[in-house]
Amino acid sequence: MHRVVIVGGGFAGLHAARHLGHLDVSVTLIDTRNFHLFQPLLYQVATASLSPANIAAPLRTILKNQKNTTVLMGQVIDIDVEKREVVLEDARVPYDSLLLATGARHQYFGRDDWEKYAPGLKTIEDALNIRQRILTAFELAERETDPKAIERLLNFVIIGSGPTGVELAGALCEVSRQTLTREFRNIDPSKAHIIILERQNRVLPMYPDELSKNAGDTLRALGAELRPGVVVTDITKQGVEIEVNGGKEFIPTANVIWAAGVLASPMGKKLAEKTGAELDPAGRVKVDDHLHLPGHPEIFVLGDLAHCPGPKGTPLPAVAPVATQMGRYAAQVIEDQLANRTTPPFNYHDLGSMATIGRSNAVAQLPWFKLSGFLAWVAWLFIHLMNLIEFQNRVLVLMQWSWNYVTWRRAARLITEVPTIQCEHEKG
Amino acid sequence: MHRVVIVGGGFAGLHAARHLGHLDVSVTLIDTRNFHLFQPLLYQVATASLSPANIAAPLRTILKNQKNTTVLMGQVIDIDVEKREVVLEDARVPYDSLLLATGARHQYFGRDDWEKYAPGLKTIEDALNIRQRILTAFELAERETDPKAIERLLNFVIIGSGPTGVELAGALCEVSRQTLTREFRNIDPSKAHIIILERQNRVLPMYPDELSKNAGDTLRALGAELRPGVVVTDITKQGVEIEVNGGKEFIPTANVIWAAGVLASPMGKKLAEKTGAELDPAGRVKVDDHLHLPGHPEIFVLGDLAHCPGPKGTPLPAVAPVATQMGRYAAQVIEDQLANRTTPPFNYHDLGSMATIGRSNAVAQLPWFKLSGFLAWVAWLFIHLMNLIEFQNRVLVLMQWSWNYVTWRRAARLITEVPTIQCEHEKG
Repeated sequence: MHRVVIVGGGFAGLHAARHLGHLDVSVTLIDTRNFHLFQPLLYQVATASLSPANIAAPLRTILKNQKNTTVLMGQVIDIDVEKREVVLEDARVPYDSLLLATGARHQYFGRDDWEKYAPGLKTIEDALNIRQRILTAFELAERETDPKAIERLLNFVIIGSGPTGVELAGALCEVSRQTLTREFRNIDPSKAHIIILERQNRVLPMYPDELSKNAGDTLRALGAELRPGVVVTDITKQGVEIEVNGGKEFIPTANVIWAAGVLASPMGKKLAEKTGAELDPAGRVKVDDHLHLPGHPEIFVLGDLAHCPGPKGTPLPAVAPVATQMGRYAAQVIEDQLANRTTPPFNYHDLGSMATIGRSNAVAQLPWFKLSGFLAWVAWLFIHLMNLIEFQNRVLVLMQWSWNYVTWRRAARLITEVPTIQCEHEKG
Repeated sequence: MHRVVIVGGGFAGLHAARHLGHLDVSVTLIDTRNFHLFQPLLYQVATASLSPANIAAPLRTILKNQKNTTVLMGQVIDIDVEKREVVLEDARVPYDSLLLATGARHQYFGRDDWEKYAPGLKTIEDALNIRQRILTAFELAERETDPKAIERLLNFVIIGSGPTGVELAGALCEVSRQTLTREFRNIDPSKAHIIILERQNRVLPMYPDELSKNAGDTLRALGAELRPGVVVTDITKQGVEIEVNGGKEFIPTANVIWAAGVLASPMGKKLAEKTGAELDPAGRVKVDDHLHLPGHPEIFVLGDLAHCPGPKGTPLPAVAPVATQMGRYAAQVIEDQLANRTTPPFNYHDLGSMATIGRSNAVAQLPWFKLSGFLAWVAWLFIHLMNLIEFQNRVLVLMQWSWNYVTWRRAARLITEVPTIQCEHEKG
């Protein structure tokens, strides 16, 4: 039987696996985690609106009824392209077709030392880390007496103004201006300063001018400060050093969130070394028009790991709809191949893109028109709810959103710490 | 104004603070965490039924409308009994009345090296640690080929058969026999072996014979193995060594949960050193009949930190109803004191105790009668729901329970890891 191995259970890997469920092939899905994560809502975990479990679903549960599918939790350390085997730490899994969809992490453009002061937002752990920092900053400020130290604790700097940066900023404005009102005795949380730094000349630079302007106006109305045309030159424990119009400036802050750069998973580099595949500056593998690794029709590269030119020549963005369509397409290619049919080249159906900004407001660029304000927000809510994987999660998220909307409260305002005991689960 | 300082935001501390909210005193509640935790449902977080946020509520939110109350997040490192000041790392908080309710941790009776193999269940981090271990064991077993290694991974040993041990065992039976069915391809999760070790001759030894027998029968019907009269002599990475009827035996296992011993917080020892107060073997401070530290009518010791004899001479158990009543009582004593009234000695109103065993089953010892089976379970559900602090949490928990009941699924089946980045939040 044709053996398909999928590495990565994100949008690309999971949708490929589902599509392959009804074919006469054997499917093995390998991921380091036991769950599929709905990354578009991760910022709501980071800002205490949702619990991690609300936006995650166990891969095994999703795929349990596909008799031809095996799920393995494990770390892929290498691909043996010659022997056609995926190499795990303690096992090898042979494949006839291989789908690589290992995603991306944030990158610091050579300044990895910034990471400990400016965490990014890609995993559940990232989100809990950011949640802990945000909530702790207010707690420390409440106990602080030095006004300068309080100012530093209540300055929140978000670097990068793509959808993640903008959504985080909107949520932070809400937390400080609404959720925490009347809960502190020594500080006024609404005095918190939420600052967005953007290298280009406007927020959401990848969106049309009009939406970008809308988003900027809304953020300013919520109380955020937008600083376009700014280059970050250093991040320390004390704060962020920036260069603006040729001059240097220092923003004292204890809270920096990195929403600027993304780097594809190391799998890309590995493939490049082995097969001579070309990478783009973000570490993504340049694929052919069937999403194959060039020269290897048995290997597909999908999702955030793939560099695939879009209709305008620029690469398709690293977003869920692109990954989902790529996953389904790769499964279709395999199906056609087994039936001796040819498949036309991959063609992305642009469903538009959106970003929400605080409550009751969003911007959306849909295929036929642009939308902003309350209607865009309702569309955003609906689309995100419907795309959550499990019915229970949809209901739980809807409930928490409604509750949040009515009471301004946040459902998951916990400062939890790093467990002191490590898991001792190695082989005995 | 009379200054009341409360250390600890558990059941005792929180209920004291609420009661003091309408008095003409100033109240300061200090806790190392920013939330009140509903510990009786912690085992449901450990077994993937609920998310941490569902059983926790921010202390600030609960107390926001009490104008006379300040909440501080901080670690109390000492009590200056002479100067009447609570000492934090970087501040001192003066008091006229002090309520100490810092709770308890699990203890290993001198074998602290067992902790890393046999975690206990007292905090959210503990629960997430146990959840991670349980779920990871099945994942590793699925990838294992050696039958002996698989057996070790699928042996779950719970040490101690009080309510926590029994509830964990029941939930583990459900997870392995029901939730995970048909999700694995190489192992049969229902072959998991859930073993309860108990030193005494029956499970739930603190309950009447009849309920204890009921609980035992139910656990056996669910598939657990009960081993009473067993002494644990060693715990290693390989498993648990026990002594039974004079002979030694070794149970290979990768999963041990400690539900055996409890030790009061180090605050007890500190008080004993400073004031000569007497401690019991569990580290609890022996209080007078007004819950005062003997010789210090301005200091109350409450909850799991207090050793207070009950009507039968044995100390009151370390459970939520006792702590809640103690907290309210201490507040009443302060109120009476300010009004120059005397307060009668503390008198615990026994509301009974219960434990749930899997779904649809529980045992309950109520003041006037004993109950077991479905009715006891419904009573358990109702009482626990109603005692959750926030309305939203009640609704979310009820929803997840209903969902679990209908689908056998668990809402929070995530294996999350220790964040790699530590919080860098110290003073700049």
